[in-house]
Amino acid sequence: MEHNPILVVGGGPAGLEAARGAAELGYRVLLVDKAPRLGGNPILSQYAALTPHMENAEVAMGRMIDAVRGNPLIDVRTSTTVSAAGGAPPALSVTLKGPKGEEKVEAGAVIVCTGFQHFDPGRETQIYGYYEFDDVITLVDAERMLKAKNFVRPSTGQPPKRLCFIQCVGSRDRQIGNTWCSKVCCGIACKEAIEIREQVPGCQVFVFYIDMRTYGFWEDQIYWKAQEEHHVSFIRGIVTEITRRGDTVVVKGEDTTMGRPVEVAMDVVVLSVGMEPSEGTIQTAKVFGMPLESHGFIETVGGPLNTVETPKPGFFAAGAATGPADLEDSISSAGAAAMKAAVFLRKSRIATAA
Amino acid sequence: MEHNPILVVGGGPAGLEAARGAAELGYRVLLVDKAPRLGGNPILSQYAALTPHMENAEVAMGRMIDAVRGNPLIDVRTSTTVSAAGGAPPALSVTLKGPKGEEKVEAGAVIVCTGFQHFDPGRETQIYGYYEFDDVITLVDAERMLKAKNFVRPSTGQPPKRLCFIQCVGSRDRQIGNTWCSKVCCGIACKEAIEIREQVPGCQVFVFYIDMRTYGFWEDQIYWKAQEEHHVSFIRGIVTEITRRGDTVVVKGEDTTMGRPVEVAMDVVVLSVGMEPSEGTIQTAKVFGMPLESHGFIETVGGPLNTVETPKPGFFAAGAATGPADLEDSISSAGAAAMKAAVFLRKSRIATAA
Repeated sequence: MEHNPILVVGGGPAGLEAARGAAELGYRVLLVDKAPRLGGNPILSQYAALTPHMENAEVAMGRMIDAVRGNPLIDVRTSTTVSAAGGAPPALSVTLKGPKGEEKVEAGAVIVCTGFQHFDPGRETQIYGYYEFDDVITLVDAERMLKAKNFVRPSTGQPPKRLCFIQCVGSRDRQIGNTWCSKVCCGIACKEAIEIREQVPGCQVFVFYIDMRTYGFWEDQIYWKAQEEHHVSFIRGIVTEITRRGDTVVVKGEDTTMGRPVEVAMDVVVLSVGMEPSEGTIQTAKVFGMPLESHGFIETVGGPLNTVETPKPGFFAAGAATGPADLEDSISSAGAAAMKAAVFLRKSRIATAA
Repeated sequence: MEHNPILVVGGGPAGLEAARGAAELGYRVLLVDKAPRLGGNPILSQYAALTPHMENAEVAMGRMIDAVRGNPLIDVRTSTTVSAAGGAPPALSVTLKGPKGEEKVEAGAVIVCTGFQHFDPGRETQIYGYYEFDDVITLVDAERMLKAKNFVRPSTGQPPKRLCFIQCVGSRDRQIGNTWCSKVCCGIACKEAIEIREQVPGCQVFVFYIDMRTYGFWEDQIYWKAQEEHHVSFIRGIVTEITRRGDTVVVKGEDTTMGRPVEVAMDVVVLSVGMEPSEGTIQTAKVFGMPLESHGFIETVGGPLNTVETPKPGFFAAGAATGPADLEDSISSAGAAAMKAAVFLRKSRIATAA
């Protein structure tokens, strides 16, 4: 019954769930994260509340972290990366690089849960003025202020009176090379809009969008709720430029429903930045020799009927490492990956015994 | 190591994946389906190809069915329903009703994978004329014709020259009580539009939509592809009435991008019908005393961080039984449910031994 541990790379929602699942099935797990603490983006980027049920992100993630920390089958290594690998599962040699230097370990299977990184809106396009104007922020900056319960105009420190979200920044955009839809930004903008209306009651909130992709239950749970209970205004439009006039940021574009130009002054503009393959994803794929799919995320095999298996036997991936994912996607695929990694080890053992 | 089998209810994509996963982890599985054959909606409703990768649905589902049929740990019972239950997992008494009458079995855990049913567009609203006009069909009717490679106007048997899809039929609609977005209909309409353009090259294809919800990679894989490679026209609009004029079906409504009324004659109108809780879901929940969430699907606990656990210990749910789901959702959540059901049995055994 002895086996090498399942190596889980990344300790965000997917990695935590994969580690717990595999350990609860009775398998030893080695969970590594390059950050000094577990939790991934919801913790490191200081998310306020989770979409759609609005539970405090630190509390919700805290439960997952506690479950992992409390499981004796899981060996957690933070501030640690995978720097080299050789051989193949179920006897993969892996070099870990951590606070105490390098260490060689053996892994029975690998689950890559290296997540995504937020698009940097100043990197490839300047139309949004992210680095020019203090009052142009991102969804992530907004999360931090909402979490601190101190949502203000960065330039003045005062509560904003008019604020807008601009959707699809770094998504659905061939020019910058990100042709995919990042899936969650519409829902997260609705969630933040509700939180802003709650924390800054006098503030008018607008959302400029191409298509509101609040699929499934997000439709009534957060999109209708934002409109009907919190009076958030949704405007179908294309933003072409952000400039500054006096104290305010001016958003120029076209209202495509009314068919007329729009030019509105805002105290704060929130850019709904999308998901990109994280550096950790690219780096991990390189070390393990895992192929990337056409958008640059980890490739899986078998289309929609096989979501976590990669072309390399014994290597699995879950969550946003394989493409834009919401929390449900990450948790479900991580659970599936834990199952598949365990099955891989079972089959290896049977093959060895035969 | 002895345990009662894991009862999987429903043999569609989720049920097949849950059954295979649990069996590959070494657990005995009892898979029941009320239909005479396995495969769920993709097989019973004769889907042509799966979204987004366009693999033949019968081939793709055939692989899953073969894997289940070929696993000696899985006992498959078709034409069988669960008619009564008593006690609790890991020793749940279940009465099955099958071709040979009633049978009592014991189940260690339950995974409900009873899926969805397609919205019946003639049931609650007559504006679409589904039962009045032969040439008004649904996404499901279109699948059948595409699968048979005989896509025609039902009234004439001839290939159509102009066809449109109408999105959100039975979804995002408070009047009929379906407030959710059914998640997959935008992607499936794109997929069918591409297939129609391939099978009926001269046919103009239009899609009337509110928001195109082709999230993630569906954006470029099928939405852009439909527009750019297959010249499908997408029109943001609201359809208010379908009537008949001479040989054609007339679609009336408003083009909300151009801000003008639309009245167009079509040879075929395809209603993009959404997902509703299936009869099997409602019936199964009743027999097991499982609560439903506010939309009428199976309730799960723990928000986005716990996708398959229900409020009743030992009862899990996966796929569209818990809400609108695409194939990836169904396969991932089914894999996660297999893991969690196995963990439940492991913990029960440890508790019993202690």
